[in-house]
Amino acid sequence: MIRVLVFNEFQHEKDPNCRASTIYPEGIHTAIAGFLNKEADLTVKTCTLDDKNCGITEAVLKETDVLLWWGHMAHHRVPDEVAELVYREVNNGMGAVFLHSAHKSKPFMRLMGTDCSLIWRESDDLERIWTTTPSHPIASGLPPYFELPGEETYGEAFGIPTPEDIVFMGWFEGGEVFRSGCTWRRGHGRVFYFQPGHETYPTYYDENVQRVIRNAIRWAAPVYRVQNSMDCPNPPRVHHWGK
Amino acid sequence: MIRVLVFNEFQHEKDPNCRASTIYPEGIHTAIAGFLNKEADLTVKTCTLDDKNCGITEAVLKETDVLLWWGHMAHHRVPDEVAELVYREVNNGMGAVFLHSAHKSKPFMRLMGTDCSLIWRESDDLERIWTTTPSHPIASGLPPYFELPGEETYGEAFGIPTPEDIVFMGWFEGGEVFRSGCTWRRGHGRVFYFQPGHETYPTYYDENVQRVIRNAIRWAAPVYRVQNSMDCPNPPRVHHWGK
Amino acid sequence: MIRVLVFNEFQHEKDPNCRASTIYPEGIHTAIAGFLNKEADLTVKTCTLDDKNCGITEAVLKETDVLLWWGHMAHHRVPDEVAELVYREVNNGMGAVFLHSAHKSKPFMRLMGTDCSLIWRESDDLERIWTTTPSHPIASGLPPYFELPGEETYGEAFGIPTPEDIVFMGWFEGGEVFRSGCTWRRGHGRVFYFQPGHETYPTYYDENVQRVIRNAIRWAAPVYRVQNSMDCPNPPRVHHWGK
Amino acid sequence: MIRVLVFNEFQHEKDPNCRASTIYPEGIHTAIAGFLNKEADLTVKTCTLDDKNCGITEAVLKETDVLLWWGHMAHHRVPDEVAELVYREVNNGMGAVFLHSAHKSKPFMRLMGTDCSLIWRESDDLERIWTTTPSHPIASGLPPYFELPGEETYGEAFGIPTPEDIVFMGWFEGGEVFRSGCTWRRGHGRVFYFQPGHETYPTYYDENVQRVIRNAIRWAAPVYRVQNSMDCPNPPRVHHWGK
Repeated sequence: MIRVLVFNEFQHEKDPNCRASTIYPEGIHTAIAGFLNKEADLTVKTCTLDDKNCGITEAVLKETDVLLWWGHMAHHRVPDEVAELVYREVNNGMGAVFLHSAHKSKPFMRLMGTDCSLIWRESDDLERIWTTTPSHPIASGLPPYFELPGEETYGEAFGIPTPEDIVFMGWFEGGEVFRSGCTWRRGHGRVFYFQPGHETYPTYYDENVQRVIRNAIRWAAPVYRVQNSMDCPNPPRVHHWGK
Repeated sequence: MIRVLVFNEFQHEKDPNCRASTIYPEGIHTAIAGFLNKEADLTVKTCTLDDKNCGITEAVLKETDVLLWWGHMAHHRVPDEVAELVYREVNNGMGAVFLHSAHKSKPFMRLMGTDCSLIWRESDDLERIWTTTPSHPIASGLPPYFELPGEETYGEAFGIPTPEDIVFMGWFEGGEVFRSGCTWRRGHGRVFYFQPGHETYPTYYDENVQRVIRNAIRWAAPVYRVQNSMDCPNPPRVHHWGK
Repeated sequence: MIRVLVFNEFQHEKDPNCRASTIYPEGIHTAIAGFLNKEADLTVKTCTLDDKNCGITEAVLKETDVLLWWGHMAHHRVPDEVAELVYREVNNGMGAVFLHSAHKSKPFMRLMGTDCSLIWRESDDLERIWTTTPSHPIASGLPPYFELPGEETYGEAFGIPTPEDIVFMGWFEGGEVFRSGCTWRRGHGRVFYFQPGHETYPTYYDENVQRVIRNAIRWAAPVYRVQNSMDCPNPPRVHHWGK
Repeated sequence: MIRVLVFNEFQHEKDPNCRASTIYPEGIHTAIAGFLNKEADLTVKTCTLDDKNCGITEAVLKETDVLLWWGHMAHHRVPDEVAELVYREVNNGMGAVFLHSAHKSKPFMRLMGTDCSLIWRESDDLERIWTTTPSHPIASGLPPYFELPGEETYGEAFGIPTPEDIVFMGWFEGGEVFRSGCTWRRGHGRVFYFQPGHETYPTYYDENVQRVIRNAIRWAAPVYRVQNSMDCPNPPRVHHWGK
């Protein structure tokens, strides 16, 4: 059983002037939890910016196998301590999946060490998402490409460290390309970034997007986990010669 | 002084029914040598499939710093021995730049170890080429993106080993994306692949394309070169203990 | 059920003057098949240089999930066609595990594109093998390090493409270091190289070595496999705008 | 002219009970500046923990091409703001070279996103440093290996992101191996980590160590630099078709 925790800042959806309030009336986290809850091997919890400390404590993360993160307009309201906790627990072996505008979230930037910048535009571009590494577990069951009729445009240069695998690349009607699905190992944990998911489009109801997220969770589930990877052990010298 | 050798199969250009015969009447190699010869730090030679053994011998490669390769319809007519010589000399430290349809050339495939497959289409698509790693020496002086009004479309999944750097990514009007500028180290040598350059378009007269090729040559020029990297030395044991 | 094929050149073991004849009287392949056959999820076949075409045909590889390869003194007697078949089927999705002196085997070199050279010495050095990526599936269940009382020494610089993961690194009593366990993706297939296993030492009876090989087989088992990755599809253009 | 800034915490050297006070009476930074000042293409400044804000401001970094960093016992006394400034300016294009125990310094950890842990021991082990990528500019002029008669032992598993290049690997008499010279790109900047340099050994007087540091500075010097890479541009849509 993989224990999933979905964090969502849950701001746009509460704004009646934002399309998100119609598309995701109960929040993006609830929509994501909705399709994940149909999976027999997953148990899903959610938390938001409204929860104390974002609902994230060391104890909570120790009970989490894979953390999903959605944030956008309120990155700055996530305490630095929460980013630090996530960074530490990923290094201990917890998996993490960062969605869409979470590229500028504190925990993602903390794990990458780069600026995570990109170019962007809201112009209802069609996006076509190509599977660039079909043999990657996260691409399992995905077609050569699939389309989203409208998405926020994200474009290169994307300020990330060279990904270990680029599983998906995005093509936008307006002329942009993007490394849309990228993996990294950080310490003992695995990190996946997935670009689609702007709050004003029903992206998380898309069957292919849901499949990618399910695959990513299974891929990121820990295979090795420690209590505290920050320690540097000081083992004794073992002599093998001059005996 | 960087010694450049440009190999071109030189077939399409001799076919009066092919647009290439009008665009590159003296061959793609001559067009490339033309703009390279304006550079004070480069000396340029060319060779083609018409030359004995493609004009490539071990001695010729030992006198070459960077080899450029263009091939398409006649890959199979390049002797296996030529591919082997290129593979060996790159490992010894020679640089190599593979252009457009050279993705399926024998020497490139020999160096990659993969199928180097892609999807393709000839439909006069506009291509927009994005600079994804602006700090890479091959991107020096290039804008965030530049366009070619028509190119052969190449699309993912591109069957290459994970590149060390993706310097450029291509966007095609018809809906495809492509890792258009990629680098690898092979032994002591450096390899660059660059996607634009179909024979029926005047791509090699484009100022930005020329700049990429010049940059790539300077980047691929050897910094360390050996006579024969195939040998496995058998050094004696040096004791440091039990003294 | 993972279908494993173990290729061994089987030369040293038939030489009564070689220690291998005493340690592996029925061949290294038989020793490896011996411990693999205890696994419920593996079915194991073997083949050697004595078999016609090394026992390797396209049909045989299509029925193989993971190929293991041991070779040393008779690399040159493996037909080029066999190396070509292995290269193609790995790109189609078959897994491959190359053992010890197989670093200079034709199929491994064909997949790497480099010289695969190293320095070496036979001086009965103790080797200590460090787990450098404990969260990698191939490291599952392995300790921080384990030792082999005697091994052939292999040392850097090892002429391989930058590995995707370095799972193990070797330390040798005589002063050498080596990237002893390395992974690469080639096309749709996964490749693992593992350095220990000289014919004059009982390395393949070592419990940790056996665990590494079992882990590597499970890791390299195909998740995506195609009939022929060499083809370049030519899909039609799909218009999305007013042309 | 490459503008170098050497930061050293400068604590051990002021402790009369520490060997460092005899070996580096004026501080490690002064020793490093000493051999760098002999280079015609370098201008060198130094700063320490005694300086206000470690001597590091945004303005100072904007005038720095490559920052060297040595720290150990007082990592915690470096303000978080200083680490943030270094992280930002590396992403803007500044080069950074982290020496020895700086693996646990705030700016290095900020750039890596991992725990940067390792195993260690002080037992006067001889270290032998192997050149694993002889064609890398940082290895220019270095022999296949060189030795330091005594160093602090650092061992794997080293908790870093997969390096882009492993230029050097260390072998320690007591049985450890280490990825001793590693490179990464972070944003537009280049980062190098180099393991030797414990304060109780005269490592920075070693000719080969000095050569590595000089090479690293020249390699890390910016080729592309921006004012503020944190911004995400929002360019307009450029239509190419009938919309």
